[in-house]
Amino acid sequence: MANVLIVGAGGVGQVVAHKCAQVEEVFENITLASRTKSKCDKIADMLSRKIDTAEVDADNVSEMVALIEKVKPDMVINVALPYQDLHIMDACLETGVHYLDTANYEPPEEAKFEYKWQWAYQEKFEKAGLMALLGSGFDPGVTSVFTAYAKKHHFDRIKTLDILDCNAGDHGLPFATNFNPEINIREITANGRYWEDGKWVTTKPMEEKRVFDFPEGIGEKDLYLLYHEELESLSKHFPEIERARFWMTFGASYLKHLEVLQNVGMTSIEPIEFQGQQIVPIQFLKALLPDPASLGPLTKGKTCIGNIIKGVKGGEDKIYYVYNICDHQEAYKEVQSQAISYTTGVPAMIGAKMMMEGKWMKPGVWNMEQLDPDPFMEDLNKYGLPWQETWLDKPFV
Amino acid sequence: MANVLIVGAGGVGQVVAHKCAQVEEVFENITLASRTKSKCDKIADMLSRKIDTAEVDADNVSEMVALIEKVKPDMVINVALPYQDLHIMDACLETGVHYLDTANYEPPEEAKFEYKWQWAYQEKFEKAGLMALLGSGFDPGVTSVFTAYAKKHHFDRIKTLDILDCNAGDHGLPFATNFNPEINIREITANGRYWEDGKWVTTKPMEEKRVFDFPEGIGEKDLYLLYHEELESLSKHFPEIERARFWMTFGASYLKHLEVLQNVGMTSIEPIEFQGQQIVPIQFLKALLPDPASLGPLTKGKTCIGNIIKGVKGGEDKIYYVYNICDHQEAYKEVQSQAISYTTGVPAMIGAKMMMEGKWMKPGVWNMEQLDPDPFMEDLNKYGLPWQETWLDKPFV
Repeated sequence: MANVLIVGAGGVGQVVAHKCAQVEEVFENITLASRTKSKCDKIADMLSRKIDTAEVDADNVSEMVALIEKVKPDMVINVALPYQDLHIMDACLETGVHYLDTANYEPPEEAKFEYKWQWAYQEKFEKAGLMALLGSGFDPGVTSVFTAYAKKHHFDRIKTLDILDCNAGDHGLPFATNFNPEINIREITANGRYWEDGKWVTTKPMEEKRVFDFPEGIGEKDLYLLYHEELESLSKHFPEIERARFWMTFGASYLKHLEVLQNVGMTSIEPIEFQGQQIVPIQFLKALLPDPASLGPLTKGKTCIGNIIKGVKGGEDKIYYVYNICDHQEAYKEVQSQAISYTTGVPAMIGAKMMMEGKWMKPGVWNMEQLDPDPFMEDLNKYGLPWQETWLDKPFV
Repeated sequence: MANVLIVGAGGVGQVVAHKCAQVEEVFENITLASRTKSKCDKIADMLSRKIDTAEVDADNVSEMVALIEKVKPDMVINVALPYQDLHIMDACLETGVHYLDTANYEPPEEAKFEYKWQWAYQEKFEKAGLMALLGSGFDPGVTSVFTAYAKKHHFDRIKTLDILDCNAGDHGLPFATNFNPEINIREITANGRYWEDGKWVTTKPMEEKRVFDFPEGIGEKDLYLLYHEELESLSKHFPEIERARFWMTFGASYLKHLEVLQNVGMTSIEPIEFQGQQIVPIQFLKALLPDPASLGPLTKGKTCIGNIIKGVKGGEDKIYYVYNICDHQEAYKEVQSQAISYTTGVPAMIGAKMMMEGKWMKPGVWNMEQLDPDPFMEDLNKYGLPWQETWLDKPFV
């Protein structure tokens, strides 16, 4: 029976708190902490059982240490900002508790998704007898486990991997971003990147486009190649992979809005002088756009995230597609948060459960695909993210 | 030989100064005044002959009076902001000089184009033996004279009037507005309005769209119904007109940018709280967009503004099309200002010339269509805005 400290009370933190609270046989004691305690209290009030709440600045290691010493958790579930990963890892090392996050560390003011900073903690965690589980969300996270599962059960060798992230939800507003619009826009306006023949290939923003016919009535959607962090760890841990790419769906209207906002300079992070102040255009834009949290009750439709894997089994080429479908309205009904947060928060809870049940517990810093996929895959079906698998006739080219 | 005072040193003021300076036989002495004297000096330096410059706040009647008393002009050519028309008219009455403008008075902070405020000066100007010529630009102005000319020479009765304002220029930038973007955007996002069967009909912004194949290689362009001020005076002075409408071309890309900027709230005039200040989104947008003046040297292509008039002559229905084509680059070569300012500034000079030569001089407040169109039409051909006329087979529906 475990005692967990969840750090971060945004959309994902809310889902993690809900899901941990549902699994009382594992998560006996839960504390939810964030910079703003009132956000934690608001979430705590939604739950069926009592949890504790606290205020903490996750950037402040000694504040984190003091909170951990007070709460005495077995592990920290970090769903705060990616900028804070290293500070929280330091606090975990100092206090001797296990660690889990859903997104890799990113230096502030630098859109640079790389695992190197966290992988550098490998020896420290191993020596301390502590575990750090990295990227236990959906993508990275479930998509990493999908890959490990495919390799374990279906392939002698994986040749190509395409991760397809489709959000077919509709909030009915002309333009809004699903999470922090600043991060959302930055991700899309950055260069794309994929792994091929042992090296990285860079593409221009939105340069590579495909159409895929998604299952369960979602239908044909436009997908664009982006860089996504699981490509780094998957290409390292499955060195046999010839090509690994990540694709995300964007609607024509969303891209039109983005194009215009870029054209007029509204997505720029360069401050301009206005009314005697320095104003960063994208921050002013953020102030104009709807609060992403307000979209939850409005969003209808489904997400479909999964992997298309081409590989060899017994000398034969096969194409495997494994995916989850998540319904925005059902997610909202269960945890008052739509599918975007739901698909990230549920795997965070399952990852923590794997660790606390001892199924995945081992000292060191680990990516999801390095651990046995079977118990995790079982729990996805049990805790709200059921997956389906099928064999395709033709590859995703 | 006349002495004129030009008030306003924007794009149009620059053209008026150039054109008056070219017509030395009429405009012997020229003074250019504006709130910022350095702008006047910059224009004066471009001209082939010497003119005087001065600083004046056109909103301040006593300042205007003092300037007029010093300069002793025969008339004031007002190409300042429409908000300032009444103040300048007051100053003209007080000092006994004639008046001309290119756009009707508009109360500040209220997008309400109406002639009533200026028409109310009729008796005052008449009694003072002074003339006020209203709207001597292109539209209103030339389009009003086109209508009077058609009536005088080609029709017993005008049935329908459609004014088509096409700017087929291209500045090569993804988005920029031709003049003050705040006014430009406000005009387009306002309801449309047209005159039919003795009353006004209101349309939603951009609701009515037509396609017209413009002459001289401009080709097919999308036109949208807008309200424009000459409709008010033309429907009054030609009460026989069954329907009078105004159309302006907008490209798909321009409208796309505008739609997006509206969707995200960037065109709003409602201030929002940001970084402890009240910030008006459209003013912040204006600060981001290119300065309209910077577009001059970049703009290629032509404008085509004219009237399609259906009427009866000798019992027979006929459709008359009269228009001017103006080339952005040629205009820029002549007066360092592109066609948008050129087509407004040239008619202001010609209107003033009509008054100073006595061809149009009569006490009172007048709209352009109330005066003899022939000498004005002659001068359009002479001073840079040649017009063409043709008969169409089918009406503009």
